[in-house]
Amino acid sequence: MSEIKKRNKVAIINGPNINILGIREKDVYGTVSWDSIESNLRQLGENLGVELIFYQSNHEGNIVDFIQENLNEIDGVVINPAAFTKEGYSILDALTAIDIPFVEVHLTNIFSRGGWHEATIFAPQAIGHINGFKENVYSFGLLAIYNYLK
Amino acid sequence: MSEIKKRNKVAIINGPNINILGIREKDVYGTVSWDSIESNLRQLGENLGVELIFYQSNHEGNIVDFIQENLNEIDGVVINPAAFTKEGYSILDALTAIDIPFVEVHLTNIFSRGGWHEATIFAPQAIGHINGFKENVYSFGLLAIYNYLK
Amino acid sequence: MSEIKKRNKVAIINGPNINILGIREKDVYGTVSWDSIESNLRQLGENLGVELIFYQSNHEGNIVDFIQENLNEIDGVVINPAAFTKEGYSILDALTAIDIPFVEVHLTNIFSRGGWHEATIFAPQAIGHINGFKENVYSFGLLAIYNYLK
Amino acid sequence: MSEIKKRNKVAIINGPNINILGIREKDVYGTVSWDSIESNLRQLGENLGVELIFYQSNHEGNIVDFIQENLNEIDGVVINPAAFTKEGYSILDALTAIDIPFVEVHLTNIFSRGGWHEATIFAPQAIGHINGFKENVYSFGLLAIYNYLK
Amino acid sequence: MSEIKKRNKVAIINGPNINILGIREKDVYGTVSWDSIESNLRQLGENLGVELIFYQSNHEGNIVDFIQENLNEIDGVVINPAAFTKEGYSILDALTAIDIPFVEVHLTNIFSRGGWHEATIFAPQAIGHINGFKENVYSFGLLAIYNYLK
Amino acid sequence: MSEIKKRNKVAIINGPNINILGIREKDVYGTVSWDSIESNLRQLGENLGVELIFYQSNHEGNIVDFIQENLNEIDGVVINPAAFTKEGYSILDALTAIDIPFVEVHLTNIFSRGGWHEATIFAPQAIGHINGFKENVYSFGLLAIYNYLK
Amino acid sequence: MSEIKKRNKVAIINGPNINILGIREKDVYGTVSWDSIESNLRQLGENLGVELIFYQSNHEGNIVDFIQENLNEIDGVVINPAAFTKEGYSILDALTAIDIPFVEVHLTNIFSRGGWHEATIFAPQAIGHINGFKENVYSFGLLAIYNYLK
Amino acid sequence: MSEIKKRNKVAIINGPNINILGIREKDVYGTVSWDSIESNLRQLGENLGVELIFYQSNHEGNIVDFIQENLNEIDGVVINPAAFTKEGYSILDALTAIDIPFVEVHLTNIFSRGGWHEATIFAPQAIGHINGFKENVYSFGLLAIYNYLK
Amino acid sequence: MSEIKKRNKVAIINGPNINILGIREKDVYGTVSWDSIESNLRQLGENLGVELIFYQSNHEGNIVDFIQENLNEIDGVVINPAAFTKEGYSILDALTAIDIPFVEVHLTNIFSRGGWHEATIFAPQAIGHINGFKENVYSFGLLAIYNYLK
Amino acid sequence: MSEIKKRNKVAIINGPNINILGIREKDVYGTVSWDSIESNLRQLGENLGVELIFYQSNHEGNIVDFIQENLNEIDGVVINPAAFTKEGYSILDALTAIDIPFVEVHLTNIFSRGGWHEATIFAPQAIGHINGFKENVYSFGLLAIYNYLK
Amino acid sequence: MSEIKKRNKVAIINGPNINILGIREKDVYGTVSWDSIESNLRQLGENLGVELIFYQSNHEGNIVDFIQENLNEIDGVVINPAAFTKEGYSILDALTAIDIPFVEVHLTNIFSRGGWHEATIFAPQAIGHINGFKENVYSFGLLAIYNYLK
Amino acid sequence: MSEIKKRNKVAIINGPNINILGIREKDVYGTVSWDSIESNLRQLGENLGVELIFYQSNHEGNIVDFIQENLNEIDGVVINPAAFTKEGYSILDALTAIDIPFVEVHLTNIFSRGGWHEATIFAPQAIGHINGFKENVYSFGLLAIYNYLK
Repeated sequence: MSEIKKRNKVAIINGPNINILGIREKDVYGTVSWDSIESNLRQLGENLGVELIFYQSNHEGNIVDFIQENLNEIDGVVINPAAFTKEGYSILDALTAIDIPFVEVHLTNIFSRGGWHEATIFAPQAIGHINGFKENVYSFGLLAIYNYLK
Repeated sequence: MSEIKKRNKVAIINGPNINILGIREKDVYGTVSWDSIESNLRQLGENLGVELIFYQSNHEGNIVDFIQENLNEIDGVVINPAAFTKEGYSILDALTAIDIPFVEVHLTNIFSRGGWHEATIFAPQAIGHINGFKENVYSFGLLAIYNYLK
Repeated sequence: MSEIKKRNKVAIINGPNINILGIREKDVYGTVSWDSIESNLRQLGENLGVELIFYQSNHEGNIVDFIQENLNEIDGVVINPAAFTKEGYSILDALTAIDIPFVEVHLTNIFSRGGWHEATIFAPQAIGHINGFKENVYSFGLLAIYNYLK
Repeated sequence: MSEIKKRNKVAIINGPNINILGIREKDVYGTVSWDSIESNLRQLGENLGVELIFYQSNHEGNIVDFIQENLNEIDGVVINPAAFTKEGYSILDALTAIDIPFVEVHLTNIFSRGGWHEATIFAPQAIGHINGFKENVYSFGLLAIYNYLK
Repeated sequence: MSEIKKRNKVAIINGPNINILGIREKDVYGTVSWDSIESNLRQLGENLGVELIFYQSNHEGNIVDFIQENLNEIDGVVINPAAFTKEGYSILDALTAIDIPFVEVHLTNIFSRGGWHEATIFAPQAIGHINGFKENVYSFGLLAIYNYLK
Repeated sequence: MSEIKKRNKVAIINGPNINILGIREKDVYGTVSWDSIESNLRQLGENLGVELIFYQSNHEGNIVDFIQENLNEIDGVVINPAAFTKEGYSILDALTAIDIPFVEVHLTNIFSRGGWHEATIFAPQAIGHINGFKENVYSFGLLAIYNYLK
Repeated sequence: MSEIKKRNKVAIINGPNINILGIREKDVYGTVSWDSIESNLRQLGENLGVELIFYQSNHEGNIVDFIQENLNEIDGVVINPAAFTKEGYSILDALTAIDIPFVEVHLTNIFSRGGWHEATIFAPQAIGHINGFKENVYSFGLLAIYNYLK
Repeated sequence: MSEIKKRNKVAIINGPNINILGIREKDVYGTVSWDSIESNLRQLGENLGVELIFYQSNHEGNIVDFIQENLNEIDGVVINPAAFTKEGYSILDALTAIDIPFVEVHLTNIFSRGGWHEATIFAPQAIGHINGFKENVYSFGLLAIYNYLK
Repeated sequence: MSEIKKRNKVAIINGPNINILGIREKDVYGTVSWDSIESNLRQLGENLGVELIFYQSNHEGNIVDFIQENLNEIDGVVINPAAFTKEGYSILDALTAIDIPFVEVHLTNIFSRGGWHEATIFAPQAIGHINGFKENVYSFGLLAIYNYLK
Repeated sequence: MSEIKKRNKVAIINGPNINILGIREKDVYGTVSWDSIESNLRQLGENLGVELIFYQSNHEGNIVDFIQENLNEIDGVVINPAAFTKEGYSILDALTAIDIPFVEVHLTNIFSRGGWHEATIFAPQAIGHINGFKENVYSFGLLAIYNYLK
Repeated sequence: MSEIKKRNKVAIINGPNINILGIREKDVYGTVSWDSIESNLRQLGENLGVELIFYQSNHEGNIVDFIQENLNEIDGVVINPAAFTKEGYSILDALTAIDIPFVEVHLTNIFSRGGWHEATIFAPQAIGHINGFKENVYSFGLLAIYNYLK
Repeated sequence: MSEIKKRNKVAIINGPNINILGIREKDVYGTVSWDSIESNLRQLGENLGVELIFYQSNHEGNIVDFIQENLNEIDGVVINPAAFTKEGYSILDALTAIDIPFVEVHLTNIFSRGGWHEATIFAPQAIGHINGFKENVYSFGLLAIYNYLK
């Protein structure tokens, strides 16, 4: 039973500079702020009967700490590694160390931006990967982890 | 006005060997048949008020023909290029030639399978890319193109 | 004598999506339709005393069939492989199998477009290569094969 | 029992331009025509008690269709992918999708010809690979698949 | 007017281990301590009428936080990314996210040191790049950003 | 008006060792001397109403000087960079610095010769590229620049 | 004399996720907890007459700070960089900046795990490198640094 | 006449560790011992009227010696270079120095094993290459060299 | 004493096409002419008590000659190799042969222009490298060599 | 019981030129002779209750022979492949063929020596890898294989 | 007879900065001046009955001119391309265009100097290559071309 | 004095298949036998007052043994590593271990033969390198080592 209950908690994790969404490059990321995205996700979580916890940090180590501290509490992760996408090995290591299923999302189409934006170390070990649909990637990601945990 | 009406037709295109879903490697692709996926998508399309047309072919040229013949009819594409993902330049050329927005989807996480499964020529020019969530990628893809066309 | 007569037939072959010239990306390819290009070429062919046959297909296999079926009839080829330029090995194999001289042409400067547009498997085995002068590449190509066959 | 009976049907599949053997580059491929190779193979098949079906196409898609249509009938495949050796992913995908054992053969020593002739995507997933012994590669291939199926 | 006033504040940012200048490899970096460099820069700032703020951290995340917290205050940045030069994507992302002009400086000639010292992800998006003149790079960098902001 | 008149002068520039055409490797370059090529081009120029100036040098710097000295006089360039094709950056830089349209030509098919003959730094910035048709490449090149300037 | 005394202090440093040893992938890392490893090392340190200090952090910057703060106290380092093995330049920079001798250890054979686990930036500058013998690598590492400092 | 007689002797050469077949990795190489393979080959040699000599060594130099000592006696070679496949240049050099036709065979499919097993320096200069059919590769190889020598 | 006096002469060397500054691509290089840059530098030289000699050539060999002829006269070099930046080995060789300290400067940020502009063979052996600040790079370079020679 | 007894024999194998330790490059390898290393190891073996056999050869084939001849006698191997580290495939093949656990050791830090010294084909299949601690690597290696066999 | 006489003239060609031998890096090139090398070569030429002409230039184009102007006079070349070794295509092109046999020499061992010194475009087309024996390489080179022409 | 005497012994070492010179590929290596080369060298040795010892083996290990056994006797080496040129690390290691000066020679121009013939691991550590002048390379090599030892 606790098993069933446990399958209800999902962490939404964001890497560096996502907290300044709406301020940063508006032509690339749009003008939607993170607050409005978060409130939409809370609504969707409620509809699905999934409890959500949100975490953002500009510190790679903080995200590792967060994952370790919550490893017994969370059943799945939706993560936008942002600028840690290419080299955030310690985060990837934490996720795979405790074997937590996760979905990788990106606001923009990382494959069409060129340079370091194209490389992801998370994709090969994620359940799946979604990018390019602006704020919708978070709700798709939540639906995807929900379906996977069902 | 016809503009608004036109924004209601989406093509769901599948590349080679997707027609034998349910028969082919079940451990990788699951046992769900294409027929059941298609009927779910039709239901979703109805709910969204989007008309769907489905096309599958093992012939790269047929898919190019299909796109050319429907270029005035369709407003968006959800495409699973399957084994044409790495080298189907004529399909990609057709989609970009007529400048039709498309979403790329894959049933499996192509980044964790190794070899030719990992390379995609479609991703850089797609609106976005979704993979790894089994049959759900089609409904996510349809929602994504719907949001984009709105 | 039949030798001399035979030296009078040239095939103009086009790969995928060339049939929608004038509809596709006008900023890149211009607004001239294929029909007007073809009629200019027919005129030039007449002036040179060369019989022309035209073929376009979106199907790699069809082009191979066409070459095989006409191998005893044609003396030279002007080919725009379009989206088959990088990977159309079976077409290249057909041309070299029957040892027919051919000229490769491209409407645009493929070396300045980037990505897959830059790579050509045909160039090393062609008599010569012409690109970048819009519809003029076909008449240059025809003149070139005419000079070669003389 | 049907199991034993089933182990009696082998498909001999040839890729593009093999149908013009004897016409094409004679210094490379010899003057033996496909017809005489096929009749020798039929004789060998009879001796081994193996039913053979032959298929050749210049169309990648046709070969995929052929494999799908015969997937319940054939027990093994001897394939010369010819110009599809390097990029015929949809054929390889079809063979592995239905998990049919296959042997890869080539008339010439592909490793000493240079360029695209050297690369094969089929070898890593074939039972085995034979090249360089002209028409004998087909009889060796048939014996190999026969031994494997025994 | 506040616009003019705002054009008077420049951040001098240093990455890891720059705080132990004078202690660390003296043959490479010289014996000048950071304190004396900083006081020279303050003098130069005063002469130019530019307000300076200094920041150093061994933590990539702290530098990102610093940039975010000061984004409305600072008009330009002189940054020595030090050991973050090759992989500090989150810092680069922060600088470009808020579109702040920055100059990249290094005490040593990074191109002649070999190994990871040679690679910089900052250079392509900096206004300019200065290296190799020991402590002078900071005053050159400050002059450069001053000229740019004028 | 001078504008129209100006559109009548084209420079034909040749790189090193083209001046010994007819003496050098005859099996590769044929026995036609440069003099006869030049006189044919003069005839063609007259027919088209285009004034031609010819220049050849074994010195990269001389060609740069020539371009700078004539930058106000010439409307277009047909250039065979010969042995400067792979590394003649100062010539390419001169052509693009003064933004003069140019066509790149080569007597032989550079893509089938192997080694350094295959690499060209000029192609991506040329209007177009012609190779492989012996002395005809100059007349094709002149026609091409003529059509472009029209 | 203080020199001799100083040669008695060694830091054992662990990178991210080593603190959850025994919880994380047990098939790869075994079930031994860090506590039992540490107590064995303390015993060995006592036997050798070496004082040990232990440090673990999920934050790259913290490890740099730790090294800087202890640079006058410690005579050698045994470091398991874990997920910082491939990109932890600031740690490597700190170790080499203060020229402290260090031994690199890994619980598993990093060369047989594939992917990012195989690459180490520390090995070229370490005294030596030990991997693959589970918890024994720490005692070997301690013995190695002890022998080196003797 | 001696010519005809000479065309009757074939050397079967095996590289290192083939002598412990049946002992070594049985899941990869099967349980058939070399003795039984050799006796089957002797039978086949007799049927074909071909004299066979067998040689195995773990020493690259011994195999070179063997080839030199027998260069006037043998008409062809079937060689399984085993662990010398990737770097046994002196053996390859010996075979090509005396221009003796040879067939390369491998018990397993070297292209699907990964790592060093995939690379062969012998294939480009062999008459042909056979792999993957366990002990059958030797009889196929013998037949192939027999056909070639005929 | 002559030693001290000698430390007063610096050569400012410019590679090809710098002489047409102000005429060439104005959006990239600005409208400042070389004459005004030179007169500013002369002023700065006077202030510093440094004698300047200026040299520009489109000929790689001339620059080598210039360096050889002045090797006993000059104490340092500020060089903008321009189009010789990537391949001007004979200039680099001349500078290092006589072991003259030099600073490399570029008007534009060469690392953000792409293509051949990014590669420099001079940087690893220069005292330092400055780019991106338009005409200021020359005064910065002069200050840098002045500081170095002091 | 013989099982237990068998777990007592370890081979210490050295590749080429290790026999001249003490004579060869003393600045790199030190002045300790192999004899003194061997006598220390014998003492350690006695303490651990492990029987040791020593083997050194300059011949790759001899080492393969040695391994084959002792395959039933030895329980583990400590190997310093020396100059066979990069290409001794037949030794690696012998070790893996009979599935004997082995530890790879090197006297020097192979990762900091550059060139061919850095590459090892043994590491991925060894239990573990130790380098850089001079003669101590052998005792660490023996302890490591002893722990593994326990 | 003139044939025999013609076989008596050899050009000794030197690339840039060889004229300052004895002045430039003496630790690398020694203190022997070019004059003494030349007089030794003249003596050797006289002994062999070979007429010598010497040429040195810092200008790539001048060396091409020299070769063209002497093409009917010289029977062989000994060339030290110096800083043109890696990119002097026009010189190589001149030598091969007139098909003159040449020997490549270098004062130092170019393979042990690193960087651009290691790459030579001349070696593959030279009769042979000599490096590393200081001034002796010229006499060896002269003997070699003398033997070749005999 | 013994020092002077010792400077009189040079080993001429040949790798595999050089012993069959004159029998092997005559179009590449000529018809001169090793015996006649050796007797010429003996004559030259006598003239120079140098004692020669000759060694050839097809076994890499034998050459290592030979070098070790003669390390106190020989003052220099002329080596033609033949098929060990690319991978004979144990020979190179033996030569450098005892720090004996050596010259590398090859009968043919290894840079123009392609494939494995082009790569040499000996060149970077040799005094110098000579190739392409047939049997003359040995006398040049002997003269070179003689000059070096003088």
